[in-house]
Amino acid sequence: MALEQALNALEALLGARLSRKSGDLDQHGHSETWFPTTPPHAVAWPETTQEVSAIAKICSAEGVPLVAWGTGTSLEGHALAQNGGVVLDTSRMNQILATDAEDRLVRVQPGVTRVRLNDELRATGLFFPVDPGADASLGGMAATRASGTTAVRYGTMRHNVAALEVVLADGRIIRTGSGAVKSSSGYDLTALFVGSEGTLGIITELTLRLHAQPETISSAVCAFDTLEQAVETVQMTIQMGIPMARIEFVDSEIVKVFNKMNHTTMPEKPHLMIEFHGSDVSVAEDSRRFGEVVAEMGGADFEWATTTEERNRLWKIRHAAYSSIIASRPGCIGLVTDVCVPISRLAEAVERGRDMIAAKGLFGPILGHVGDGNFHATLALDPSDPSELERAKEVGHELAEMALEMGGTITGEHGIGLGKRGLMAAEHGEAWAVMGQIKAALDPNGILNPGKMLPDTAPAAKA
Amino acid sequence: MALEQALNALEALLGARLSRKSGDLDQHGHSETWFPTTPPHAVAWPETTQEVSAIAKICSAEGVPLVAWGTGTSLEGHALAQNGGVVLDTSRMNQILATDAEDRLVRVQPGVTRVRLNDELRATGLFFPVDPGADASLGGMAATRASGTTAVRYGTMRHNVAALEVVLADGRIIRTGSGAVKSSSGYDLTALFVGSEGTLGIITELTLRLHAQPETISSAVCAFDTLEQAVETVQMTIQMGIPMARIEFVDSEIVKVFNKMNHTTMPEKPHLMIEFHGSDVSVAEDSRRFGEVVAEMGGADFEWATTTEERNRLWKIRHAAYSSIIASRPGCIGLVTDVCVPISRLAEAVERGRDMIAAKGLFGPILGHVGDGNFHATLALDPSDPSELERAKEVGHELAEMALEMGGTITGEHGIGLGKRGLMAAEHGEAWAVMGQIKAALDPNGILNPGKMLPDTAPAAKA
Repeated sequence: MALEQALNALEALLGARLSRKSGDLDQHGHSETWFPTTPPHAVAWPETTQEVSAIAKICSAEGVPLVAWGTGTSLEGHALAQNGGVVLDTSRMNQILATDAEDRLVRVQPGVTRVRLNDELRATGLFFPVDPGADASLGGMAATRASGTTAVRYGTMRHNVAALEVVLADGRIIRTGSGAVKSSSGYDLTALFVGSEGTLGIITELTLRLHAQPETISSAVCAFDTLEQAVETVQMTIQMGIPMARIEFVDSEIVKVFNKMNHTTMPEKPHLMIEFHGSDVSVAEDSRRFGEVVAEMGGADFEWATTTEERNRLWKIRHAAYSSIIASRPGCIGLVTDVCVPISRLAEAVERGRDMIAAKGLFGPILGHVGDGNFHATLALDPSDPSELERAKEVGHELAEMALEMGGTITGEHGIGLGKRGLMAAEHGEAWAVMGQIKAALDPNGILNPGKMLPDTAPAAKA
Repeated sequence: MALEQALNALEALLGARLSRKSGDLDQHGHSETWFPTTPPHAVAWPETTQEVSAIAKICSAEGVPLVAWGTGTSLEGHALAQNGGVVLDTSRMNQILATDAEDRLVRVQPGVTRVRLNDELRATGLFFPVDPGADASLGGMAATRASGTTAVRYGTMRHNVAALEVVLADGRIIRTGSGAVKSSSGYDLTALFVGSEGTLGIITELTLRLHAQPETISSAVCAFDTLEQAVETVQMTIQMGIPMARIEFVDSEIVKVFNKMNHTTMPEKPHLMIEFHGSDVSVAEDSRRFGEVVAEMGGADFEWATTTEERNRLWKIRHAAYSSIIASRPGCIGLVTDVCVPISRLAEAVERGRDMIAAKGLFGPILGHVGDGNFHATLALDPSDPSELERAKEVGHELAEMALEMGGTITGEHGIGLGKRGLMAAEHGEAWAVMGQIKAALDPNGILNPGKMLPDTAPAAKA
């Protein structure tokens, strides 16, 4: 049998770094969210690009699915081997290979996590800004085109990956991009692999762009009577060109659960949290101008802080939002929605989202990276009531359709994976078939992360 | 004959908007630089996406090359139909379809030029920042991933194209991207088509990102004794996080020819020109801090200005650089090199470039977008001496090889076209074959801009 042959060959290659133990399989068949556990047939822990290439050749020859795995923190089932096969765990490819402070680049293996990278960078005065919340692997972040709270200033993985080394389905090793800050040299393969969710190749090395640690950071928090006021404040701040490093929204439900869990007395209203990065002079100026916008928009309880301690206090509600929501309903599981709309439609989108959640009788506070038009509802679901999960999926679907109707996208940062594959045709139309053609050209046997993102049968080009 | 059949069908479709007149063919067989004239068999002027689709279907069915043409300002022969066939001139697709000031997006047809777009946007308080110098078409700028003087702050076409409508080789019409500022929804086809130089599809509509017109602009100019001092000044300015909107370098040769043409007495030394965009307070602060860096680095003749008139006076040498160089050698033709290196290697790269030019006995002053590590030598060549062109090409080749050796790229912004195709294997290795596979998947008959950028025979995937 082809699978057995492949696993034997992989065992010969990797020794104890290939596992068929049920504990390892279960751990790599489990996702952070509601998807059923789907253990692979084996888990491989390569340590070098050459080993990844050899694994791809074996899987390709035997037609065995090969699914890359970072830290398993994705939210749409990206790394589940639901067709079986081999999960390739990158956690042993965890070296920081070279830091180039002058050109602000760092070369890493894909299993390095973002928190560790920033720990190691601390003394250089540089940092890697993309912050999706979870301490994800950088390979996984690139594969899902991750972003998070700082994208409004520093961009997403799309903007912060300078170059890649990738192993293709047939084992070829290619390099994309360069150390130059721009290039017009051929197809932008770096951008093609970023966000391809392990369906076009396995990322074995990343060159990432670093940024100067800000001299000064100031944070502010303020409350609004209505969502509209909060969103209009964001829009006006953008229009005035006040450079925000983060701007986050939490709804009044989140404040309620946070107050309850923490015995605090924050006004139970929509809040904005903002952060400015720059020189002493510039952040003082930014904070002052932002304060004027807030006052004009009727915001209240404006507090700002520059010390780390005070900033952490102000931001605590945002950092604790997910855990406060989950803890407020003991034993619940979370389903986090993720759409992104043009900013002009954001207030309406959040309002309608709130109504959709209420109409389904669910509990799902909303927070968002409002500078990007990206927001999430965290639906806290009773696992003993399967109809709650069904209704939550319906809400996710309705939100995605609304985002498309508004000219937005079905996912701002969590990606497609299994969870949103059914919406790809609605967003992309014939362009989805083009994605399938590219997939078929580079992975003709369809071994890389099969069943995800792409159309079932990649149509041949209509010549 | 297939070609005749195609041209007859195109004539039936387009009437007088298909031309076979030699004047039209010659005009569309000519490039701005040294490439020999290669007239196509016909020129088509479609007005709608549907017409572009119909043209593609006809050319596809008959196997006739189809080459998109914007304003003909590209510098690497991108739009020359050197295999014959049909040039598709987008100049009649020149409508600004919709401006969305709230979301800072504008939807345009590909034949709109950047100067016209900014004229039309003036009253909105917004502008489109990418400025390659020439008044190129926006479709052409996207196709070559153009950038220019403002990329250091606003990014290149890669960052400023939000969405595209594209006609594929087989006539299918697809849409890529969305109105959201970020997305994790599938392959980044927008990024794939940006920079594909008409080899994967014809861009028929672009949604572009706009930026707020800066409240205040300040400019500064200063002279340095050495190139190293100028480049170190740029590096330190970047390290200090002083946000430059433009930072340009001109060498002492340019100052010499400029002084001669304009009867001015600027010090004949390397110069930096810089521009800051922001509020009154922020640009004053930026200029002050930059002045400190210049003083520390030994710069002299520091002048700064905020009025439009004074700024134009300071920048005149940069804007007149190309014409001053060409005019300094009457009757000459220009060959402009274009490489981009990591900024840490920039001073060395420019020095070595200067030596290469001198070693070949050529005249070619150097200027550059130094904030990006991108620089150009403008080689002024005697057209009656074919060996000058040969030596100039050799310099271009040597510069490209040096850029690769330094971890950079063979082209920062001019693209590949015909001129740099021979260097693709050196930059991309096996990844060049991957580009060929993608091309073959989407354009199996190879009708779109054949003979450019890609390997001769796109190899099939090794499955």
